Amino acid sequence: MSNERTEIGSLGEFGLIEHLTRNIELQQASSVVGVGDDAAVIDHFGKQTVVTTDLLLEGVHFDLMYTPLKHLGYKAVIVNLSDIYAMNATPTQLVVSIGISNRFSVEAVSELYEGIYAACSKYGVDLVGGDTSSSQKGLVLSVTAIGEVAPDTFVKRSTAQKGDLLCVSGDLGAAYVGLLFLEREKKIYLESPQVQPDLEGEQYVIGRLLKPEARKDIVAFLAEAGITPTAMMDISDGLSSEIMHLCKQSQLGCVLYEEKIPVAEATRLAAYKFEIDPTACALSGGEDYELLFTLSQADYDKLVLNEQISVIGYMTDADQGARIITKGGSTHPLTAQGWNHLQQ
Amino acid sequence: MSNERTEIGSLGEFGLIEHLTRNIELQQASSVVGVGDDAAVIDHFGKQTVVTTDLLLEGVHFDLMYTPLKHLGYKAVIVNLSDIYAMNATPTQLVVSIGISNRFSVEAVSELYEGIYAACSKYGVDLVGGDTSSSQKGLVLSVTAIGEVAPDTFVKRSTAQKGDLLCVSGDLGAAYVGLLFLEREKKIYLESPQVQPDLEGEQYVIGRLLKPEARKDIVAFLAEAGITPTAMMDISDGLSSEIMHLCKQSQLGCVLYEEKIPVAEATRLAAYKFEIDPTACALSGGEDYELLFTLSQADYDKLVLNEQISVIGYMTDADQGARIITKGGSTHPLTAQGWNHLQQ
Repeated sequence: MSNERTEIGSLGEFGLIEHLTRNIELQQASSVVGVGDDAAVIDHFGKQTVVTTDLLLEGVHFDLMYTPLKHLGYKAVIVNLSDIYAMNATPTQLVVSIGISNRFSVEAVSELYEGIYAACSKYGVDLVGGDTSSSQKGLVLSVTAIGEVAPDTFVKRSTAQKGDLLCVSGDLGAAYVGLLFLEREKKIYLESPQVQPDLEGEQYVIGRLLKPEARKDIVAFLAEAGITPTAMMDISDGLSSEIMHLCKQSQLGCVLYEEKIPVAEATRLAAYKFEIDPTACALSGGEDYELLFTLSQADYDKLVLNEQISVIGYMTDADQGARIITKGGSTHPLTAQGWNHLQQ
Repeated sequence: MSNERTEIGSLGEFGLIEHLTRNIELQQASSVVGVGDDAAVIDHFGKQTVVTTDLLLEGVHFDLMYTPLKHLGYKAVIVNLSDIYAMNATPTQLVVSIGISNRFSVEAVSELYEGIYAACSKYGVDLVGGDTSSSQKGLVLSVTAIGEVAPDTFVKRSTAQKGDLLCVSGDLGAAYVGLLFLEREKKIYLESPQVQPDLEGEQYVIGRLLKPEARKDIVAFLAEAGITPTAMMDISDGLSSEIMHLCKQSQLGCVLYEEKIPVAEATRLAAYKFEIDPTACALSGGEDYELLFTLSQADYDKLVLNEQISVIGYMTDADQGARIITKGGSTHPLTAQGWNHLQQ
């Protein structure tokens, strides 16, 4: 990107929308009317429509000191697609609203949209509408994603069964450790702006924070393997609190084995640099955007060879509560804040 | 409402969501899964889905000094429903995201939702999801509405035909004059807090600003009368700029008659108190949420008895541009800022 700066006022709201949406090519046959009218029109004949929304506020959900705008746009889409996949559905359309102060140039907003379009392109989703507004201060980003699912094949959080296996995709805790590095470097920069950031070797955890992906592949694998999860949700707030939601909504308890929680080697090493327990990062950190799901024990053989899926425990009666068995063999109740070695 | 104040922190995010959504009763048969999962699920078998979104930011779109939270919630829904009706569709579901600072209590947020639920109930729409977040400062409200329409009966902005009649529903300019009153009283209050607000007799214009309605009745009337508009959009930014959008997207020009523009007597009298031209309020004021539509001259007889619909002009070739003929008989080009008597 060049260093040009075009004021948003020079385009006006409608000029800005035209500028940002001029290259949209609709990919989904179901996108009948896209950007440019009062509303978009979508055909989902014979399918069910799935809808989710997320609000991202500067200073609360992201810090532009270390979040490139392109990554922010990408991530804002991903967090919504992740919710659609968590319903066992396929995302198809998006609407995006932004509120921007005059501190942002047209070039800056274009970068944000480059990230949005990159995610749309990768996941085959169409941007079909939105709203553009000025804000007094700070960037506001609201994304609503729409998807489709064959009738009654969606998967809720509330339908896990006693005895089901508790599974997660990928690995956990990395985004949280990535955040610790970026917060540390921000602090150093604010104190001594001449010091170069030292993020050498931490690409994995930082990448997991700044450019997460949604687990389209896991949903596709489950479908191909003929597995229908009994319950599913995505992990945005840390494994512990998500498991507690799943237990509460399914009116069950569970047993979780610490040693089964997937944590990448890079995450483990990075966590040690901050002298924190990698398990605590997985349980209490957030923004992993992996899938948490339950399935019948009879389906175990179908997924055992998939290295992207870990069985981490099983569902029990509600009166047993949600418990974790540590590597040392002791049992603790899970808490919404996560269970933390350091607090023991 | 009592004067109790419950801090949002005492409920937590999930407690707040439960508190705000505990009385939801889904009204639409198409609402399969509502609040409480990763996403909502909607059945629109055999219909097309219509989706629109609006972002409302404190200090930009509303001023809480004179906007009761209940009215704000109501209006945030209405502005989205208006977009759905403007597609000739029926709204069915909503998702609502809010960003709130700790300056708001649980009671305050509940009032906001009372307004949201009041609009949902009146228009038969289900709230099926959303996102709740803290904000550093100011209230952020993002609403996405979903609707349905029989296949290919939606009406776009781009399909008006030369010779079509240009029509509007209701009357225009009132919300803008209402805003002038409220801004005036705010200024007086800030200078002299002991002075009681003087809004006597201005209920109509203030009501139009604070509690607008979406023109469900007009869409129903058109359907019953067997009229399919050739193009339609809602009027959120002032008649002049909306007509210019319609002309541009339909690649046509138009002639608009000033004397045909519907302005309520209460609006006219109120505008005179500010020494401004009522026509200018209709052309350049915003937030009327009336419908602007075009239809074939052959349909004229079917709507002539409906006092809620005014024929205000007709569509011409694009090279004629968008023009207004004043009460005095002179012709001016319409401008995006509206055409203003006072500037002549």
